[in-house]
Amino acid sequence: METLTKASMAVCPFIKSSSTQALRQLSNTGGLTSQARHCPFMGAALTAKEQARLYSTKSVKRSATTSAKVATGTTSSSSYKLATPELSNAQVDLSNHELAFDFNGYLNDDLNKKRLDKSYRFFNNINRLAHEFPKAHRADEQDRVTVWCSNDYLGMGKNQQTLDEMKRVLDKYGSGAGGTRNIAGHNTHAIRLESELAALHKHEAALVFSSCFVCNDAVLSLFGQKIKDLVIFSDELNHASMIQGIRNSRARKHIFKHNNLQDLEEKLAQYPKSTPKLIAFESVYSMCGSIAPIEAICDLAEKYGALTFLDEVHAVGMYGPHGAGVAEHLDFEAHLKSGINHPDITTVMSRVDMVTGTLGKAFGTVGGYITGKANMIDWFRSYAPGFIFTTSLPPAIMAGSATSIRYQRSTLADRIAQQKNTRYVKNNMNALGLPVMPNPSHIVPVLIGNAGDAKRASDLLLNKYDIYVQAINFPTVPIGEERLRITPTPGHGPELCNHLIESVDSVFKELNLKRINDWAKIGGLCGVGQEHDMDEHIWTDEQLSLTDADLNPNVFNPEISPIGVSSGVPSVSPIY
Amino acid sequence: METLTKASMAVCPFIKSSSTQALRQLSNTGGLTSQARHCPFMGAALTAKEQARLYSTKSVKRSATTSAKVATGTTSSSSYKLATPELSNAQVDLSNHELAFDFNGYLNDDLNKKRLDKSYRFFNNINRLAHEFPKAHRADEQDRVTVWCSNDYLGMGKNQQTLDEMKRVLDKYGSGAGGTRNIAGHNTHAIRLESELAALHKHEAALVFSSCFVCNDAVLSLFGQKIKDLVIFSDELNHASMIQGIRNSRARKHIFKHNNLQDLEEKLAQYPKSTPKLIAFESVYSMCGSIAPIEAICDLAEKYGALTFLDEVHAVGMYGPHGAGVAEHLDFEAHLKSGINHPDITTVMSRVDMVTGTLGKAFGTVGGYITGKANMIDWFRSYAPGFIFTTSLPPAIMAGSATSIRYQRSTLADRIAQQKNTRYVKNNMNALGLPVMPNPSHIVPVLIGNAGDAKRASDLLLNKYDIYVQAINFPTVPIGEERLRITPTPGHGPELCNHLIESVDSVFKELNLKRINDWAKIGGLCGVGQEHDMDEHIWTDEQLSLTDADLNPNVFNPEISPIGVSSGVPSVSPIY
Repeated sequence: METLTKASMAVCPFIKSSSTQALRQLSNTGGLTSQARHCPFMGAALTAKEQARLYSTKSVKRSATTSAKVATGTTSSSSYKLATPELSNAQVDLSNHELAFDFNGYLNDDLNKKRLDKSYRFFNNINRLAHEFPKAHRADEQDRVTVWCSNDYLGMGKNQQTLDEMKRVLDKYGSGAGGTRNIAGHNTHAIRLESELAALHKHEAALVFSSCFVCNDAVLSLFGQKIKDLVIFSDELNHASMIQGIRNSRARKHIFKHNNLQDLEEKLAQYPKSTPKLIAFESVYSMCGSIAPIEAICDLAEKYGALTFLDEVHAVGMYGPHGAGVAEHLDFEAHLKSGINHPDITTVMSRVDMVTGTLGKAFGTVGGYITGKANMIDWFRSYAPGFIFTTSLPPAIMAGSATSIRYQRSTLADRIAQQKNTRYVKNNMNALGLPVMPNPSHIVPVLIGNAGDAKRASDLLLNKYDIYVQAINFPTVPIGEERLRITPTPGHGPELCNHLIESVDSVFKELNLKRINDWAKIGGLCGVGQEHDMDEHIWTDEQLSLTDADLNPNVFNPEISPIGVSSGVPSVSPIY
Repeated sequence: METLTKASMAVCPFIKSSSTQALRQLSNTGGLTSQARHCPFMGAALTAKEQARLYSTKSVKRSATTSAKVATGTTSSSSYKLATPELSNAQVDLSNHELAFDFNGYLNDDLNKKRLDKSYRFFNNINRLAHEFPKAHRADEQDRVTVWCSNDYLGMGKNQQTLDEMKRVLDKYGSGAGGTRNIAGHNTHAIRLESELAALHKHEAALVFSSCFVCNDAVLSLFGQKIKDLVIFSDELNHASMIQGIRNSRARKHIFKHNNLQDLEEKLAQYPKSTPKLIAFESVYSMCGSIAPIEAICDLAEKYGALTFLDEVHAVGMYGPHGAGVAEHLDFEAHLKSGINHPDITTVMSRVDMVTGTLGKAFGTVGGYITGKANMIDWFRSYAPGFIFTTSLPPAIMAGSATSIRYQRSTLADRIAQQKNTRYVKNNMNALGLPVMPNPSHIVPVLIGNAGDAKRASDLLLNKYDIYVQAINFPTVPIGEERLRITPTPGHGPELCNHLIESVDSVFKELNLKRINDWAKIGGLCGVGQEHDMDEHIWTDEQLSLTDADLNPNVFNPEISPIGVSSGVPSVSPIY
């Protein structure tokens, strides 16, 4: 390729007019070859070269002994041998001049599209240091930055109780589960974790998956594939995992406007009550921080005969007196009073049919789960390929997660500190006219509005101010709504907050980025520079003044009653 | 429900004719209610009861303050309020007497189907003990069993180097990654692991996923969804993850007979060479132990213009001088000689376009991956939702996996010991007429032939002989081909092997199960009692006599050149 490139430099108008740097980048990524295929001269040369290579690189013959060992299978009666003339290397039909599909060119073209529209992603090497939270080192261990965009929202990744439990279980039970849940991968740690999760959400049972992406995909797929005529109603801002699950379910679907009950009801009302329906939505939408009207969606679900599927991935650990999420938060006082028992009223949490959550954000480890009625969880356990056919999470991950959940169940301190730091950042950024997208949650999305500027802002923060905030671009957010997504934690005290706010302000000056007023002049976007009525945080001032002394003592109880169906043997009789 | 049950006992012919035990089981699982719906009397009573409950369990009103916090979103302009009369609890239209779809009844019916056909799964609580490998304890910590069905094939779950590295990284970097690869979850451990994986398979780059289920699903889906007119050719015994990926890809597909080159070629030949094609297959098929004719499939792929997608999940760590899998094993001497460098010939491994593998079986941790050309890996990194939108594996898992891979790269001892123990078990079981399904790999599948007997055999081994071998039933294997799947490890020495063989022999006597001769009389099944030509193991006697002194010294090199595209910045120029 090198020679061809040099030869063409003398005559090609494309190469003559391109900068050396651009050519080098194209060349290094294979893009040059891909471009060259469009040229009448180079295209022909490449084809000739490939035909020649096709012959010369035919693999050397293996020894007969080795080839014989490439055994045929046990359940078919293959009589086709390697030695048949049609397949021997020397006799591949070279008279067949038709070219195969150019996968290589296709891949390079598709990657170049991303480079051209600036959505090509460059990952930053960020090594979050447990003992210097929220600091991390970059590739060079001495190069420290402050991480401001992690989803380790509460700093549980460094929690000593969790780490100690993980190390204890590593020593005793080893590094891996060694099998699927059905084959050697089911154990005390899985049972205990699922019991903790069911207890957290006050549901009958829980099931753990490799991740909540897998959980959402597997569960939503299963519903659509199994239940004839199911119609799924999905919020337009739902996470990619839900979109994928709904797509793979092949069920009829309706996308309703974000958090718009009227639109949802109009869509629900198109079907008879007897049509099976499922409403899929999130509590906290992670990229804008909006919060769903959960209770009203439950009302609609009951009215129209729909199941409710609520993704609390960005809310578990963060809301509610015990960190069970926004659904728990909506009955804050009742749950605070009852502790780990069910309160004496029907709650939003008990009305939601399914809650999915993650162990990989506020709980600080990795994995996903779903909670619900025992028979529903047993159905997922029995039928969902994404659960059945995969290796269990390691015992140490399961055990550490259970410890982490129990820790967060018995303290309000981290949740409250996180919310206070969030308020501080939002208020002070707003005061400087920095375009924080208004929302009632813990997410601080700062609107930039195009991919190039978002990356420049992120790079400048990282390289000049030692602050790591990843630029968020398509496909995570729509094109034109690119942003910086800032996530304060309990570890981001006033000093770090002030440094962040000043640095973002400087970057906005240096790059001449739009502030609130600039957005207002052009009609606003994503709530920035627009009328909105959601200044109120979901955590009230009164709730932020609580202490752990306000918790019901039963949340400190080290043992909970095992419930759930994870063994196929419910240890409590489910109530139907 | 209890009262209804009692009332009906006096008059119902179904209940009168059923045993108390059967009724209790049905009642505990909700199946009774589900059955009752089919009864003309009970059905009507249930409907009336549910209508009444619909009214009485409407949730209590939350305080106005709490409800107001259920905020609307930021990107839509919802004006629908909780207070609108149509949605308030008191005014739900109870004149709508049409019943909603009975999800609960559906789930119970579907679970009962599994109970009736004996495919309902009961998970065994098995806690594998690192310091007593291959022993585990059951729910009671004193209750020891020997695990004979784990996929921790080499006992790497207890490897001290891996465990030490995991604990070191836990202490330094905490318990979780804290984000997706794009947002705070990319780090030195991910880069290093992907470099190790690319080096292991001698491919340009690698990409790590939550699991190989996710990897297979994500990659195959992506190909079909992105590349117009792609046709996928899939072995009929491919794993559920590949089946799911192919299904979700929505590409045109052909299922070829297991390991049958003639059938594959006939199907390939139906399309012009220019049609984009992909052949998806495994090296070791885990439930029967058969091994694919990889080299011949590569020949067909080149002849017809297809990409090759090879799942080496059950082969990595187990075959080849460095544990890279069967593709490496096929050029055993060349790779043994070259060490971690590329040998001076085109190899089967270099001809395969993509290899997928797992970290959760022979490498003893958790996670999955794919290796291939740099631009292809970059394409998955840039476009596959199952990679993009999920939390990275924890740093400790990444680091432990890299250590484990490097450990297995530099020793032959575990692979050879595992193969020797496998041979011992197979030979001695065959001598007793126990129906081991013939295959050239490390899997020892013992045919039972129905789900009830398979579970009885497994239960008897566990409860009477302290041996844990899970019964394998549908959907993991076809109905009628249920089996015990035994996986010897280097830790299963002669004493444990003899105990296993004697115990299985006793169980076959006690349950009067079919032996080889019995299967032969009825024509055989899965190779048992049938003519076959695959007594030859893939590991030759000569290879089994090698020692670590035969390895090229460069496999002990602690540093490998970082390659790959995991940061979006290839550190070596990929060759196109």
